Amino acid sequence: MPEFISSATRFVALPDGFPMKRGGVLNGSRIAYESYGNLNETRNNVILILTGLSPSAHAASHEDDPTVGWWEGMIGPGRPVDTDEWHVICINALGSCKGSTGPASVDPRTGESYRLSFPELSIEDIADAAASAVRALGIPHVECVIGASMGGMASLALITRHPELVRNHINISGAVHSTPFASAIRSVQREAIQTDAYWRRGQYNQEQYPENGMITARKLGLISYRSALEWDGRFGRDKAGEWGSSSPHFAPELPVEMYLDYHARRFARTFDPNSYLYLSRSIDRFDLGDMGTLAGMHLERAMVIGVRSDLLFPLHQQDQIAEGLRAGGTDVTFLAMESEEGHDAFLIDLRRFGPPIARFLSSLLPQLRDAAPLFSNRRAGGSLD
Amino acid sequence: MPEFISSATRFVALPDGFPMKRGGVLNGSRIAYESYGNLNETRNNVILILTGLSPSAHAASHEDDPTVGWWEGMIGPGRPVDTDEWHVICINALGSCKGSTGPASVDPRTGESYRLSFPELSIEDIADAAASAVRALGIPHVECVIGASMGGMASLALITRHPELVRNHINISGAVHSTPFASAIRSVQREAIQTDAYWRRGQYNQEQYPENGMITARKLGLISYRSALEWDGRFGRDKAGEWGSSSPHFAPELPVEMYLDYHARRFARTFDPNSYLYLSRSIDRFDLGDMGTLAGMHLERAMVIGVRSDLLFPLHQQDQIAEGLRAGGTDVTFLAMESEEGHDAFLIDLRRFGPPIARFLSSLLPQLRDAAPLFSNRRAGGSLD
Repeated sequence: MPEFISSATRFVALPDGFPMKRGGVLNGSRIAYESYGNLNETRNNVILILTGLSPSAHAASHEDDPTVGWWEGMIGPGRPVDTDEWHVICINALGSCKGSTGPASVDPRTGESYRLSFPELSIEDIADAAASAVRALGIPHVECVIGASMGGMASLALITRHPELVRNHINISGAVHSTPFASAIRSVQREAIQTDAYWRRGQYNQEQYPENGMITARKLGLISYRSALEWDGRFGRDKAGEWGSSSPHFAPELPVEMYLDYHARRFARTFDPNSYLYLSRSIDRFDLGDMGTLAGMHLERAMVIGVRSDLLFPLHQQDQIAEGLRAGGTDVTFLAMESEEGHDAFLIDLRRFGPPIARFLSSLLPQLRDAAPLFSNRRAGGSLD
Repeated sequence: MPEFISSATRFVALPDGFPMKRGGVLNGSRIAYESYGNLNETRNNVILILTGLSPSAHAASHEDDPTVGWWEGMIGPGRPVDTDEWHVICINALGSCKGSTGPASVDPRTGESYRLSFPELSIEDIADAAASAVRALGIPHVECVIGASMGGMASLALITRHPELVRNHINISGAVHSTPFASAIRSVQREAIQTDAYWRRGQYNQEQYPENGMITARKLGLISYRSALEWDGRFGRDKAGEWGSSSPHFAPELPVEMYLDYHARRFARTFDPNSYLYLSRSIDRFDLGDMGTLAGMHLERAMVIGVRSDLLFPLHQQDQIAEGLRAGGTDVTFLAMESEEGHDAFLIDLRRFGPPIARFLSSLLPQLRDAAPLFSNRRAGGSLD
């Protein structure tokens, strides 16, 4: 099974016997990460980024991989996540296929890819693996963890399970559990992969590959990540040019169908289908519990951002996170974005997301400097890479 | 190919050479309908109902078929569509598989089912076929046409193309064209059927049947017909009972997954997959044009109803219909329903939909009686069945 790894990706080993929440342990496994900016001598200027289901650790261009990252406009010198000040570590989730150990990785016991013999995956495992990686990198604590979508869930799990590790938090379009509506969509995505005859209970190969299932799953993703409102603007009245050329076999003909088809086909072969199934189900199974869990989290500051047009992680879920953290005494800023970009807004609408994130992170800088008054962040330090 | 026809269904022949908008003609074809209540002697107490994609003509229980119809609570003696007053005709759409000629019907030229040799289908063809059926039944005009969803589109096409046939109109969750978002969902539904290996370019049979494709398509329908809000209430926190029993093959485990699975499996074998493809694409291709078309319609009164939580035919589309008809001088009542039931609200939320529909139809009764002062509707007339 191919994995998909940027040349800027580095690895850190997980300890053998790494325990999985729902049973089983991992041996010989690893977490993939990419880092930007320099670690200061006090090792206290760390921002940890936990991602959604599909992104890799390549959040921004890097000297070892100059291609555009998935949060390119947000991370870099002078950008909202300012690498002149911060040492930024973006982690690829456990269970993914972008360098961290997952179903596509080789099981050292057998020398073959795990496929469905990979243990069941939980968001808590993703959080535990991230915590383990941070510790292995010699970082005593993370000044701020930023998590969006599935990464927002994983961030909350991290803060709950490893409270000593995180001081501040930005949660973007996250939730403490999935809505039935979102689970329903993900459930159909999983079913599309599994009912593709080439899935073969996980035993596909490049020739017999569940491409149609992956295309359908990705199309549903593309539909549910955006909002209807944005699509009205993007595709307008949505007439096919001629319609005379339409195939009797119901091939795509409308602009929106062409768009979906192009992007879904690009994705289908760049993500391991089994990994997709594992990650998708871990999102649906996640449930951090009630208000009490959030109120039990001891953070200094948090910013919780939701998007009004988000169908998948609707705004009331971020409101719930903000209220919960606030009840526990955390100083919480809650932002309800008016963006039309839906769940994906944080990837696209950087004009809206950039300034508040920049302000929030800037507000954390004085306490860093108080902790390490003798060193300038720019000159001191040195990456662990 | 099986068709699915209630014992209360009656048929009316379409004239040979029935022309299809996008080319081709139908010969030996028919329209299925069911009727309720008595036609008065003036033949002016007719309500015509045009349906959404999947319903049959069996809108309510009938002496010839006592099973519950799809709009059971709305049609009957003393009900909002009061069969003590009205002669109600519900028509199964051309292209469907519930009695009207469609891809599952036998092509008289070959003695075999049309399958993909059925001509391309347009909403305008559905409207023309309905008009032809009404005329064949000896009905000079329809006092009110009621159309919901796809039936709302077909109603507008009917009024545009056969203006002499309709005096008043109730449009429920309709539109003059599809949004890109709704087309995207329907496009994935069609793809799920077509990529099922058993579809075989329309040449399936009962043994080799694209059941998985139909199940996926129906699940997407169920998801998009309702609203996220309603599902929060219905499935609550949505935890699976045990989760311990979950299959490693990602079988449904959450209550919402069980619900989708149950209902989609029930549907999969009761609707012809080719017919589904034809009807679905006719919805996406429909475009009645701009405001001018609506303003050119000459109705006496119209009621346009939309639902705030409708994802598929969002409220602004019904607002557009109301504004257009109003601009043409029609006396329009516009209702924005607060229902949480989404696009399906008219099927479920009869408590909200019943009273305004009853009031609207009652307001039409005096003019009927003026036209036929000597006859009581209850005693006169006689069904054409």
